Amino acid sequence: MNVHGKPTRTIWLHPENPAIVQIIDQRALPHAWVIEDLLTAEQVATAILEMHVRGAGLIGATAGFGMYLAAREAARSDNSAASIHAAGQRLKSTRPTAVNLAWAVDRQESAMASASSPGELVSIALSTALEIAEEDAASCRSIGGHGLALIAELSRSKGGAPVQILTHCNAGWLAFVDYGSATAPIYAAHDQGIPLHVWVDETRPRSQGAKLTAWELGQHGVPHTVIADNTGGHLMQHGLVDLVIVGTDRTTRTGDVANKIGTYLKALAAHDNGIPFYVALPSSSFDWKMRDGLKEIPIEERGSEEVKYADGMADGRHLEVLVAPADSPAANFGFDVTPARLVTGLITERGICSATEPGITALFPDKA
Amino acid sequence: MNVHGKPTRTIWLHPENPAIVQIIDQRALPHAWVIEDLLTAEQVATAILEMHVRGAGLIGATAGFGMYLAAREAARSDNSAASIHAAGQRLKSTRPTAVNLAWAVDRQESAMASASSPGELVSIALSTALEIAEEDAASCRSIGGHGLALIAELSRSKGGAPVQILTHCNAGWLAFVDYGSATAPIYAAHDQGIPLHVWVDETRPRSQGAKLTAWELGQHGVPHTVIADNTGGHLMQHGLVDLVIVGTDRTTRTGDVANKIGTYLKALAAHDNGIPFYVALPSSSFDWKMRDGLKEIPIEERGSEEVKYADGMADGRHLEVLVAPADSPAANFGFDVTPARLVTGLITERGICSATEPGITALFPDKA
Repeated sequence: MNVHGKPTRTIWLHPENPAIVQIIDQRALPHAWVIEDLLTAEQVATAILEMHVRGAGLIGATAGFGMYLAAREAARSDNSAASIHAAGQRLKSTRPTAVNLAWAVDRQESAMASASSPGELVSIALSTALEIAEEDAASCRSIGGHGLALIAELSRSKGGAPVQILTHCNAGWLAFVDYGSATAPIYAAHDQGIPLHVWVDETRPRSQGAKLTAWELGQHGVPHTVIADNTGGHLMQHGLVDLVIVGTDRTTRTGDVANKIGTYLKALAAHDNGIPFYVALPSSSFDWKMRDGLKEIPIEERGSEEVKYADGMADGRHLEVLVAPADSPAANFGFDVTPARLVTGLITERGICSATEPGITALFPDKA
Repeated sequence: MNVHGKPTRTIWLHPENPAIVQIIDQRALPHAWVIEDLLTAEQVATAILEMHVRGAGLIGATAGFGMYLAAREAARSDNSAASIHAAGQRLKSTRPTAVNLAWAVDRQESAMASASSPGELVSIALSTALEIAEEDAASCRSIGGHGLALIAELSRSKGGAPVQILTHCNAGWLAFVDYGSATAPIYAAHDQGIPLHVWVDETRPRSQGAKLTAWELGQHGVPHTVIADNTGGHLMQHGLVDLVIVGTDRTTRTGDVANKIGTYLKALAAHDNGIPFYVALPSSSFDWKMRDGLKEIPIEERGSEEVKYADGMADGRHLEVLVAPADSPAANFGFDVTPARLVTGLITERGICSATEPGITALFPDKA
């Protein structure tokens, strides 16, 4: 997607020095554009742990590059396999629930196992890191192509009036290497000249919608409006939403969707108002072992300070302000589960299917 | 309710000087406890306009005291009726949609019309102001008594385990003269020793839940936890909510409920999970002329800066921080309408009824 008018990814190799991996420090968004140089696997681990980067696809790609930096370090030492394995374990420990992270580390370790020289080790690690990133971008691009058809159809049925799309949290370009999942159909439709407008849920307590989704849509020139998380139901009651698209952190083989807390409330409102509710996901986000999302998907509880405080800019400084009484407790559940019955369909890199086991396994027959 | 351990109302006459009306400047809550002296009707108008006080019941009571101060001023001048009427018009102009405000002003003007001397004018205005405040408190106390029965029954069915209640925004003590509407049954049950716990929706964008409801529950010693507005659905899915009680800004004669934006989403989740959803209201909040809340109730749109900014304390200062991109638009709808079909019942000062025209008019037969 475009940033400051130029096509940009969320992670890349330094154009003049392949020993440096560059990322966007997303903690500074939307208030500042900070590019960070990563020179060691440990710096990569810190960047993931402290959420300079976040989002399933981008965490996986960043871990892939982290293993490449580990290979470079190992190639200069005398204990390659052990130090690479240690780096992988360290990377895996940073966000233990991120499926793509462990997957990227394991893929790198398997690939590097065939190296017969330090030079080959580094070369394999680099090409694997680039492959992981390319595959992530390609998968999101495919999701965009399939979802585009939905938006184009709505545009036709509205006689070309702007298609009104609501999204929650950031399942955007910033969460992947490019395009995003929920945003991929939006960018694809916008780039084809289909008029559309996006309602961006603020997404308290971390406000990823206001901070990240609004910013990336704005950079790419997509018309959008930030709203409080309380607002979507009212908009749907009044015909101001044609389509909901969200991402997912984990979706069961039966179509139950774990996503950022509050997604379930929007799914209920969409259902109550007859508005299509789609979930966009690369197939790596399916949990093929699970059948009952509400019972089986563990829900992360985070610190109460995220609820009691809000952070943003004041007087040119990035500050946290205390909103609630200092001595009131707060609870902070990170995700909720939207039952498959409320999901109109899943937009995957292989196409769109119903949120049912037969629908999903028809697209992914090897998982049937 | 108690503040700093002492029974306190939200508006009162200065204990040593009846020419002074005292209020809590609610803008400073929960971070500071500021009592403000009001000496003139114009100071009262400013306090209402700039939301030092807010909430239907409290706005009405404050306007009543404002007219008392206007009467004191008029009694010292030579043009009583005209200056009192002008003060009333000024008070009415501050929050034009607040039904109780115009009602309190008109009631004072009618009462004062019978005065035959400046002394009698002031005396009538004072007793009328005190009556309006007493009636508001009495009405809320009755709501508490009726709602208490619901909580007591849930407590019995749970074998005395804490009854889990979710509320949205502030329909609390701070919005009335005492007790509140949605909070009245909670305070009544707590004061009877029934174990309970309140989930307090933050209520973005103005965060009245985090700032006001959490504060007043804490002052009265009621166990509570602040949550992001996104959280209620997840809690209900997991059996962590036994009852929802909210207030209302306007309810139609057919039981459609306008309340703070986001109420509808919680009603949907309660319905989806078989959890009782009650609305507590003094009968002054019924709009007896309206039958279709979604079509007829006007929804106030407020400034976008409330969505783009969050305010709170940092470094000992009260600050606003910018959360969203500076150039992203934001929309700010103040209220939504929960259709009567999602409302289990209405808790009024006369008792509990179904959210239907027959149910409501059975309690209020003069409106049938």
